[in-house]
Amino acid sequence: MIYGASNFEQPIRWGMVGGGLGSQIGYIHRSAALRDFNFNLVAGAFDIDAERGRDFGLRLHVAPERCYKDYKEMFAAEAAREDGIQAVSIATPNFTHFEIAKAALEAGLHVVCEKPLCFTTEEAKELERTAAAQKKIVGVTYGYAGHQLIDQARRMIANGELGAVRIVNMQFAHGFHNVAVEANTPSTKWRVDPKYAGPSYVLGDIGTHPLYLAEVMLPDLKVKRLMCSRQSFVKSRAPLEDNAYTLMEYDTGAVAMVWSCAVNCGSMHGQKIRVIGEKASLEWWDEQPNQLRFEVQGEPVRILERGMGYLHPEALAEDRIGGGHPEGLFEAWSNLYNRFALAMTAADEGQGVDFWYPDIHAGLEGVRWVENCVRSADQGAVWVDYK
Amino acid sequence: MIYGASNFEQPIRWGMVGGGLGSQIGYIHRSAALRDFNFNLVAGAFDIDAERGRDFGLRLHVAPERCYKDYKEMFAAEAAREDGIQAVSIATPNFTHFEIAKAALEAGLHVVCEKPLCFTTEEAKELERTAAAQKKIVGVTYGYAGHQLIDQARRMIANGELGAVRIVNMQFAHGFHNVAVEANTPSTKWRVDPKYAGPSYVLGDIGTHPLYLAEVMLPDLKVKRLMCSRQSFVKSRAPLEDNAYTLMEYDTGAVAMVWSCAVNCGSMHGQKIRVIGEKASLEWWDEQPNQLRFEVQGEPVRILERGMGYLHPEALAEDRIGGGHPEGLFEAWSNLYNRFALAMTAADEGQGVDFWYPDIHAGLEGVRWVENCVRSADQGAVWVDYK
Amino acid sequence: MIYGASNFEQPIRWGMVGGGLGSQIGYIHRSAALRDFNFNLVAGAFDIDAERGRDFGLRLHVAPERCYKDYKEMFAAEAAREDGIQAVSIATPNFTHFEIAKAALEAGLHVVCEKPLCFTTEEAKELERTAAAQKKIVGVTYGYAGHQLIDQARRMIANGELGAVRIVNMQFAHGFHNVAVEANTPSTKWRVDPKYAGPSYVLGDIGTHPLYLAEVMLPDLKVKRLMCSRQSFVKSRAPLEDNAYTLMEYDTGAVAMVWSCAVNCGSMHGQKIRVIGEKASLEWWDEQPNQLRFEVQGEPVRILERGMGYLHPEALAEDRIGGGHPEGLFEAWSNLYNRFALAMTAADEGQGVDFWYPDIHAGLEGVRWVENCVRSADQGAVWVDYK
Amino acid sequence: MIYGASNFEQPIRWGMVGGGLGSQIGYIHRSAALRDFNFNLVAGAFDIDAERGRDFGLRLHVAPERCYKDYKEMFAAEAAREDGIQAVSIATPNFTHFEIAKAALEAGLHVVCEKPLCFTTEEAKELERTAAAQKKIVGVTYGYAGHQLIDQARRMIANGELGAVRIVNMQFAHGFHNVAVEANTPSTKWRVDPKYAGPSYVLGDIGTHPLYLAEVMLPDLKVKRLMCSRQSFVKSRAPLEDNAYTLMEYDTGAVAMVWSCAVNCGSMHGQKIRVIGEKASLEWWDEQPNQLRFEVQGEPVRILERGMGYLHPEALAEDRIGGGHPEGLFEAWSNLYNRFALAMTAADEGQGVDFWYPDIHAGLEGVRWVENCVRSADQGAVWVDYK
Repeated sequence: MIYGASNFEQPIRWGMVGGGLGSQIGYIHRSAALRDFNFNLVAGAFDIDAERGRDFGLRLHVAPERCYKDYKEMFAAEAAREDGIQAVSIATPNFTHFEIAKAALEAGLHVVCEKPLCFTTEEAKELERTAAAQKKIVGVTYGYAGHQLIDQARRMIANGELGAVRIVNMQFAHGFHNVAVEANTPSTKWRVDPKYAGPSYVLGDIGTHPLYLAEVMLPDLKVKRLMCSRQSFVKSRAPLEDNAYTLMEYDTGAVAMVWSCAVNCGSMHGQKIRVIGEKASLEWWDEQPNQLRFEVQGEPVRILERGMGYLHPEALAEDRIGGGHPEGLFEAWSNLYNRFALAMTAADEGQGVDFWYPDIHAGLEGVRWVENCVRSADQGAVWVDYK
Repeated sequence: MIYGASNFEQPIRWGMVGGGLGSQIGYIHRSAALRDFNFNLVAGAFDIDAERGRDFGLRLHVAPERCYKDYKEMFAAEAAREDGIQAVSIATPNFTHFEIAKAALEAGLHVVCEKPLCFTTEEAKELERTAAAQKKIVGVTYGYAGHQLIDQARRMIANGELGAVRIVNMQFAHGFHNVAVEANTPSTKWRVDPKYAGPSYVLGDIGTHPLYLAEVMLPDLKVKRLMCSRQSFVKSRAPLEDNAYTLMEYDTGAVAMVWSCAVNCGSMHGQKIRVIGEKASLEWWDEQPNQLRFEVQGEPVRILERGMGYLHPEALAEDRIGGGHPEGLFEAWSNLYNRFALAMTAADEGQGVDFWYPDIHAGLEGVRWVENCVRSADQGAVWVDYK
Repeated sequence: MIYGASNFEQPIRWGMVGGGLGSQIGYIHRSAALRDFNFNLVAGAFDIDAERGRDFGLRLHVAPERCYKDYKEMFAAEAAREDGIQAVSIATPNFTHFEIAKAALEAGLHVVCEKPLCFTTEEAKELERTAAAQKKIVGVTYGYAGHQLIDQARRMIANGELGAVRIVNMQFAHGFHNVAVEANTPSTKWRVDPKYAGPSYVLGDIGTHPLYLAEVMLPDLKVKRLMCSRQSFVKSRAPLEDNAYTLMEYDTGAVAMVWSCAVNCGSMHGQKIRVIGEKASLEWWDEQPNQLRFEVQGEPVRILERGMGYLHPEALAEDRIGGGHPEGLFEAWSNLYNRFALAMTAADEGQGVDFWYPDIHAGLEGVRWVENCVRSADQGAVWVDYK
Repeated sequence: MIYGASNFEQPIRWGMVGGGLGSQIGYIHRSAALRDFNFNLVAGAFDIDAERGRDFGLRLHVAPERCYKDYKEMFAAEAAREDGIQAVSIATPNFTHFEIAKAALEAGLHVVCEKPLCFTTEEAKELERTAAAQKKIVGVTYGYAGHQLIDQARRMIANGELGAVRIVNMQFAHGFHNVAVEANTPSTKWRVDPKYAGPSYVLGDIGTHPLYLAEVMLPDLKVKRLMCSRQSFVKSRAPLEDNAYTLMEYDTGAVAMVWSCAVNCGSMHGQKIRVIGEKASLEWWDEQPNQLRFEVQGEPVRILERGMGYLHPEALAEDRIGGGHPEGLFEAWSNLYNRFALAMTAADEGQGVDFWYPDIHAGLEGVRWVENCVRSADQGAVWVDYK
C-alpha cells in the first residue's frame, strides 16, 4: 500500500519539455510524478510559445527564471546550476522525441519520454547506446502497464496458471476518429501526417500499448514473423492507416492478433488483452482496470478484483486505496513514475533494479514492431520475418 | 407475435435422418419443427443402430412401421405411401450430408440439413442443381441466424444507419476442446478426423456460423480475397485446425476478420459479430441474444432489446413472448423452421418467397469459404483470390 | 439432458381454458406442455368468444367437436368421453382462476393454473382440500422457477455453501407501466381493477415471482412478520399499487426485502434474487438466466454457467442443449410441465414425488403473502405478524 | 478540462490532523489537496504517536518544527506564525471530529472533515454556528460525490429529463465485514464500538454516502418520515448494526430505500443509486464511475460516458483526461478539494460560490439522517417523522 510519503531524503529535481496549457498528457505526467514526493518540478520548457509556457510554469510554481523558452536553453542552464534538474520528461509531438531525448541524455539527465520514443530502430539503438554510456535510464510512458493487475497477470502466467500460452489477442480500437476530425483538431492533425507522426498512425499511436502489455505479461515470447494489413478508411490519411490487423507467430508456436483501430465507431477505448493458455485464459480491459478475468477451462469464470488478498503481494504493493474503490489511469502512471524514480536513484548509485518498468528496451520494441508491420503492409500484407 | 397456431390447413409431413437418442441437435430440430403445428413428425431413421432408432421413434409417437433402419429404406417406403413424408431433416455426421441430401431431393423431398451441407463447392452446386430440377428447397440450419435481432441488424444496415460498412469482426471461439476431449467423446471424435469432418475443423464447424450472420446482415458484400492462418494446438488434430484467423477483403474496400477457435479456455461460446460503419457500429453476442448494441459515434451506446416497439416490425413479428423475457436458441431455430415451412409450401405452389432464410446458397457459401480458407492456410497463410 | 422423447407410453390428454389468439401466456403453456410428447392437446375452451376460440383451436389441430364454448361445457363433455381430458391448464384473467380450478378438480382433472391461484387464503385452502379429496395435483406456473440454475441455487444453499442465510433481496421491477397504458391495453386494464385483479397489482402480479424463487431456494425459512409500503404513482390505479417495498423477518433472524414495481422506467424485467449467507452470496437475474453469480467473501466472484459439469447433476438433468447456448423462459416452463406430468402420473398411481415443483402450496403461499402485504400497507405500512 | 495549474497566486497553507502512516484516508486527502497546486502542506499532527507522526511528516517534506504532537499544539503554534496554516483537514477517528473541527474553526481555520462530522445534530449545529461566526467554511469528504457524472445526473434531473421523481433506490452494501474482522483490525475495531463510532455503524459509515449522492441529485426533496430496520448479524457488534434497510417518504410523495450493509458477502462496494422518474431513470455505480445509465422508458438504454461532448459542460469541466480513460476515486476527491479551495478563497473575500460541494449542511444532514434512523430502529423499526 502506498501512503504517499517519499521514498527519498530528497526528491529528484525534475523538469519538463512540452506538456503545457491544454496538454492532457502533460498533466498526467505531472500528476504522476509529483504525487508521492519523489519528484520536484523545478524547471520546464512547457510550450513552443515561450511566453505562454512561462505563464503556465508560474502557475505550477516553477521559479520564473527556470521557465525556459526551449529544451536547449533549459538543458544548458540547468547543467550550470548546482541544483539543476536530474531528470526530464518529454511530452512533445512524436517527431521531436528523438532529438530531445538524445540531448537530455547527453546533458546527463534521466529521461522519461512519451511513446514512440523515436521513428526507427536505428534511432532507438542510438538512444540505448547513449543512455548506457551516460548511465542514465530512459522510461517510456506506456501508462496502462502500470495498473497493478497487469503485474498480477504477469505473475500468474509465470507461475504456470495458464499452462503454455497458445494465443494472445490484443486490441486498441476506439471510434473517435471515424471522420477527419484532424481537419479541425491541431492535436490530432500531426498524428496523421507522416512528417510528424512517423511511418504509421494507429499502429504506433495505439497498437503499441496492448503490444507492451503482452510483452510485460509474456516476457519470454519472441515474435518470429508477422503480417500486417492496414487501411486508411478516411482517405486523406493515406498512407497512414486508421485501421490495422497484425497477425504474429512467436517462436514457441503461439500466435497473436493485434487490432489497432481509430474508426471503431461507438467504442471508447477498447484496449483489451486476452492471453489464452492450455488450461486457462486471462483478460483485461483498460476501461475497467480494477477487474481481471481468470477463466480456467471447465471451471466458473473468476473475476479478480484489485486490492484483494488473493492477489500476489507485489500486485498489492502499489495499491493506494482498498479494493472496491476504483483506481484509474492516473494511479497506473503514478506507479510507473515511482518505479522510474527508484530506477533513476539505483542507476545513480551504479545499481540495477529487480522490478520491471517500461524502459528503453520497451521503447525500442515498440518502434521495431511498427517498422515490421509497415514493412509487411507496404508489401501487400505479406508475412515478413521479424527483425 | 407468434401464438403457435399453424399457418397451414395441414402440417407438412416430415421425417428425420439421424438425431436419435443422445443427439442434442436432433432434439433442437424436432423442438423447432413441431412447435407451431407446421410440421408433423411421421417417419424417421433416427439411428445407425436400427433397433435403438426404432425404440426412440416410438417414444416420439412415430408409428412403428415408419421407424426405418436407414434413410434409403425410408425414402423408398415413404415414396410409396400416399401420406408419405414431404420433407426430411438430416442430423447426421458431416460426411453423410451430401449423399443423404442428394437422395432426398431425388426422392422429391424438401430438405433441411445440418451444416456443412457437404465438403466441396462442386458437391454443393450439384445439390443446387438437383434442388432446382426437383423444385424443392434446401434449408441449412445456421440456427443463430434465426434470432430476431439479426433481422433487426440487417434492416438497420440496409437503412443506412451505420453508413458505409468498413469493418466486420466475427468470432466463434469457445474453450471446450482445449485438450483432446475427442479421445473419450465419440460425438467429437469424428469432427477432428478429415475422413468424416472434411478439410477443416473449427473453420467449418463454428467459423461458418458468424460468417453466415455477416452474410445475412450484409447481403451485398462480396469477398474479394482472403488469407487464413490456422493451427492445431492439440497436435493430434493436425492437419485439422483448432484455431484459425481469417482476414478478408470485400469488393467495397471493407475488411473483415474471423476468429474461429475451440481452445479459447474459459469461453463458453463466444460467438460475436461487430459491424462497423462510417457512423455507427452494431454488435451481437449469441450468449445474450436478446440484446443488440447500437453505437453511434459521439452518442451514448444504446442497448436495443428484443421485443421493444422501437425495433423494425419484421424483427417483432417472430416474438413469442414480450420483451424482457429471455428467448434463446430454441426460438431462433423455431423461427427458421417456420420460414422453411413457408418456403416449402411456396415452392410446392411454384412460388418464391420475400423473406430470407439460410437456403442452399447459404450452404454453398459456407463450403466455399472453408475451401478458400484451407487453400490459403495450406499455402502458408497467404492471400488467395476468392473463388 | 432432455432429448424430447416422451416419459410415458401415452401422453396425458390435456385441455386448455383461455390462452387463445393474442394470448402470450397461452402460447407458453402450449409450447411447454407439448414439447416433449408428455401432453396431447385434445380439447379447449380457448376464448370468451366461442367462435374465435373454435377457429383458433382448429389451427392447433384440436378436433372441432372438442373446441368448447366455455369451461363448463368442456368439463362436462370431456367427462362423458372415454378419451376425455385428464388435465387442464387455466390461462384466464385472475378473477376466474378460483372457480375454474375448483370446477376442474371436482371434474376429476389435474390442474395447471396461472398465478395467482385465487384471491384469498380461504379460497386457496378450499382448493387444497378439494385437490386432496380428489387426489389430483395443482401446478402453479411460476415459470421462472423452472430454470435449472434455480435448482442449482437451492442445492448449494442446502449444502451449506453460503453458511447460514442472513439476507434475501428480491425484486421484480419493470418500467412498462410508467404511465396509464391500461387505458388502451385491455390485457392490462383488468390487472389494475380490484374487481378482476384482486387486492393488489404489482405485489400479486410480479412480486410473487421472486418470492417463490426464494421459497424454492430457502424451503426452511418461515416469515415471522412483515411490513409493506405501497404506492400508486399512476393515480388512477389506486387503491392498487404500482410500486411496493416489503420488508420481512424470518423466524431464523434472517431478513428480506422485496421490491415490486411496474414504474421502474427503462428496466425490462428486473427480476433478481440475491441470497446472502455468512460466507457467500448467490445472485440470479431472469433476463440472463444461464448465469448464476456465486460470491464467496474473500474470493473472486465466480460466474456459474448453465450446462457445466461443475453443477449439481440434478441441475444438469433438465438441460436441452449444451452450456454456452442460451436457454430461455420457454425451457424453464417446459421443465415445469415435465414435472407436472410426472407428478400427475404419480398421483394417479397413488404415489408422491421426490422433486419439487410449484404446487398448490406454492399457490397458497403467494396468496397469503399478498394478503399480509395488503394488510400491512392498508394500516399505514406497519409491521404485521405473518398469518 | 483540468490541467493542474493552480487557480491561485499563492496556494492555501494547509495542515492535517491524523492521516499518518498506514492511513488510506490520509493519503487520499493529501493526494487530492496537493494535486493541482491549490494547497501546500506545511504542517501536521499526523499521528497519535508524536514521534511516528513527525517521521512521517518529514517524508512528506513538512518542516520538522511544523510536525506537531497534537492538534492543540498545532493550532496554537500555527496561529502564532505569519505564514501559519489557513486550513486544516481532519482524518481521525469519528469520535474526535467534533472537538477538533470546533477548535479549528475557533482558531480561524477553514476545515475539511471526514464524515461523520460529529455524532448529534446539536453538535453539527454548533459547528454551523461557529463556522458562520468565523466566516470559515467546512467541507465534508463525501468523496464519491465529486465524480463528474454525479453533477451530470443532478443537471439532467433539474432539466426535467426524468420527469417528476418517484423512487430513489440507494445502497452501499459490501461484504468485507461478514465476520468479526474487527477482532484483529484496529482500524475497524473502533467503528463498531459506540463510544468511538457513535450511535450506528453502517448507517453512518457507509449509508450516508449514497444518501448524499441523492441530496446532490435531488436538492429539492425533503424527507417527511422514515423507518429503519437494522440488524447485527455479527452478534458482538450489537447494538451497532451491520445491516440496515431504511424506507423514506419525501414531501413530494416520492419514496426511497437505502440499503446499508457490511455483510453482503462477495460484493466489493456495491454503492449504487437509481433515481426513477415518470419518464426515465438514471443509475450510477461507484465501482464503474465513468458510466451513467440513462433509461428512458420505451427507448433503448443509453450508457453515458464521462468525458463525452453530449454531457453538460459543467460535467466536463473537471475532466483530467479524455473520455474512455478511467478516472477513479482520487479524481473525485481532487474535484472536491478544488471546490473547497475556491470556496475557502471566496469566503476569505466575503463572497459565496455558485457551485455545490459537500459543506457543513451536508455534514449536518448525514448526522440528522442517522439520528432519525436510529430513533426508528430503536423503537422497533417504526415510522418516525423526520426531524
